[in-house]
Amino acid sequence: MTEFIPPGTRYVDLPSPFPMKRGGALDGARMAYETWGTLDADHGNAVLILTGLSPNAHAAANAGNPEPGWWEAMLGPGKPIDTDRWFVVCVNALGSCKGSTGPASTHPATGHPYGLDFPALSVEDGAVAAAHVVASLGIERLACVIGNSMGGMVALALLAARPGIARSHINISGAARALPFSIAIRSLQRESIRLDPAWNEGRYDDAHYPESGMRMARKLGVITYRSALEWDGRFGRVRLDSDRVEDEPFGLEFEVESYLEAHARRFVRQFDPNSYMYLSRSMDWFDLGEHCTTRCGNHDSDVRGALAAIAGAGLGQALSIGVHTDILFPLQQQEEIAEGLRAGGCDADFLPLPSPQGHDAFLVDIERFGPAVGGFLARLGPPAQLDG
Amino acid sequence: MTEFIPPGTRYVDLPSPFPMKRGGALDGARMAYETWGTLDADHGNAVLILTGLSPNAHAAANAGNPEPGWWEAMLGPGKPIDTDRWFVVCVNALGSCKGSTGPASTHPATGHPYGLDFPALSVEDGAVAAAHVVASLGIERLACVIGNSMGGMVALALLAARPGIARSHINISGAARALPFSIAIRSLQRESIRLDPAWNEGRYDDAHYPESGMRMARKLGVITYRSALEWDGRFGRVRLDSDRVEDEPFGLEFEVESYLEAHARRFVRQFDPNSYMYLSRSMDWFDLGEHCTTRCGNHDSDVRGALAAIAGAGLGQALSIGVHTDILFPLQQQEEIAEGLRAGGCDADFLPLPSPQGHDAFLVDIERFGPAVGGFLARLGPPAQLDG
Repeated sequence: MTEFIPPGTRYVDLPSPFPMKRGGALDGARMAYETWGTLDADHGNAVLILTGLSPNAHAAANAGNPEPGWWEAMLGPGKPIDTDRWFVVCVNALGSCKGSTGPASTHPATGHPYGLDFPALSVEDGAVAAAHVVASLGIERLACVIGNSMGGMVALALLAARPGIARSHINISGAARALPFSIAIRSLQRESIRLDPAWNEGRYDDAHYPESGMRMARKLGVITYRSALEWDGRFGRVRLDSDRVEDEPFGLEFEVESYLEAHARRFVRQFDPNSYMYLSRSMDWFDLGEHCTTRCGNHDSDVRGALAAIAGAGLGQALSIGVHTDILFPLQQQEEIAEGLRAGGCDADFLPLPSPQGHDAFLVDIERFGPAVGGFLARLGPPAQLDG
Repeated sequence: MTEFIPPGTRYVDLPSPFPMKRGGALDGARMAYETWGTLDADHGNAVLILTGLSPNAHAAANAGNPEPGWWEAMLGPGKPIDTDRWFVVCVNALGSCKGSTGPASTHPATGHPYGLDFPALSVEDGAVAAAHVVASLGIERLACVIGNSMGGMVALALLAARPGIARSHINISGAARALPFSIAIRSLQRESIRLDPAWNEGRYDDAHYPESGMRMARKLGVITYRSALEWDGRFGRVRLDSDRVEDEPFGLEFEVESYLEAHARRFVRQFDPNSYMYLSRSMDWFDLGEHCTTRCGNHDSDVRGALAAIAGAGLGQALSIGVHTDILFPLQQQEEIAEGLRAGGCDADFLPLPSPQGHDAFLVDIERFGPAVGGFLARLGPPAQLDG
């Protein structure tokens, strides 16, 4: 039940108690974040980044931590998210194990890690928590909220929960709701952890850790984060050198198997299994359309209505980016976001990219994503002009 | 280590010893098969069906077994594979647990099931074994060999190993070699079985059976056999009724999860885990291009060369069918088969179908696959005309 917090992480305390959407509340919870650049006098140049399931708040090197971050090529002076112009905030997701309060954090009532005593976590809880970070930094209205993958869900939930909190939005490989293929994949990932006896319904420690369950979950994740097209070119049918072939029945033989194994090994002891379970399930539960059932007078989910409502609440411009090879958050989901926002009056573009790298393309195909994100931000006018 | 053999199954003994491609040999091995229709006096109307990983030889009802088979809608009098015209043979794959000799069969040297003492199994071994069934029935030249999924691999291996054994071929959702995405999926399925302590390196019994590993493997299989598109329409975000929600941490909540669970439960005790492991790995190993390294003078795999050689050895007509939504045997692989055969002079068509059901479409979308298969067979002339 270890937390993995990079140096230089800063914190904002959440209101205590912090009520959760599905019941229960957190006491003494906090959100981890990092920043880059300088906030303008009128506080109009703030950009918020909401991450996928696993990243920490260290998106790029900064004064507090000179190590490269997970989006180093995207963020910095002169880079697509230009920190000479923008004051950038990246928050670690609520429920994560990388600084923000989550199942691996100490439960103040017991002095032990929460484990499964952590209340049920929804994407919407993460959005409200992120809104507290924004407010605590004196920002009333963001120039842009950028959400990647799960962060794309959190961004939409934030825009729905805090109408007008941003004047623009970039949704990257995100979705307005979970669909059954991705639910099935995540369900299987969680099942592989649940099946590991060491998981023990969330009561493990470093000596008794659900390593094989986490390894399976991560491998399945990596399979769905990349694409067959990329792997055909990258691995083909290349086999391991004979000295690397596993000497056990049905051991690894192909480069692609070794690649998965290496990914899994880097991950398993670097992420808390319960945190993984909570964040994973929060994505399955997410359906932006739920936000519209009252407002729009419908009883069923109304994703388009919810997106239109977000647009109507003052979101001026938006860009929804996806890639053809993404099987986890398929391209139609990014198209749905752009269309829904446009229907509500937002100047929203849908940008399908031909990246071969699948869902993870935004992390690696900076050649395509950089100009897309940088161009959108460069075209953003000053606040007065846009809001006026 | 149970075998699951339908009533009415017939057998052909393989030569003993039966040498295996990667070493070792089988003693006293046999192949299970069933037939439909009547063999013409000139033995020119025989059609061979080679199956995917899990089916038995009972493709449809027949005199020996009136129960519906796994391809009931495709095969019978007046059906697309019209048994009023064709004498149809379906073989159970070598290495399976449904009649043909496999890891669950009794090892004649020990009197116990083979388990991991079964020699390494290659797709090519299955092809040679199927050729023995064909020969034993007095068939020198098949009118058509039809291979589905793994059976599409076996069919190509058969055509390569026995030049001229068929005058036509229908490859359905098959592939001329395994590519890394499908290798990764199958590797993970095998790993889930290996990780189950009850697998015990292949030494389990009905009381100690790797049920959770098999369940995971099957669920992952079903995810890759179907498609996101189909599931969006079929399941959407529909939840289980409250009385069906699992009362345990992170239990199942969505219909799609319950569907996977039901599929897994139907499968786990109906298929031998070792057999699954062997057949799964045989597909990873398969690369038709290996057959061409000598003949074509190349040292690397030469799939196109191998396909052209098959065509040149007397394959007159071929049809390669696939579906857009197949992520396991993607459409480009069926296109590659048609193009390679065409390059060798075969009248080969590539037919991409818009079925939403993914890799399994050939089992369920008879509305599309029926006319495609039936039309091809109907256009086949009598042997003399074709070969002349």
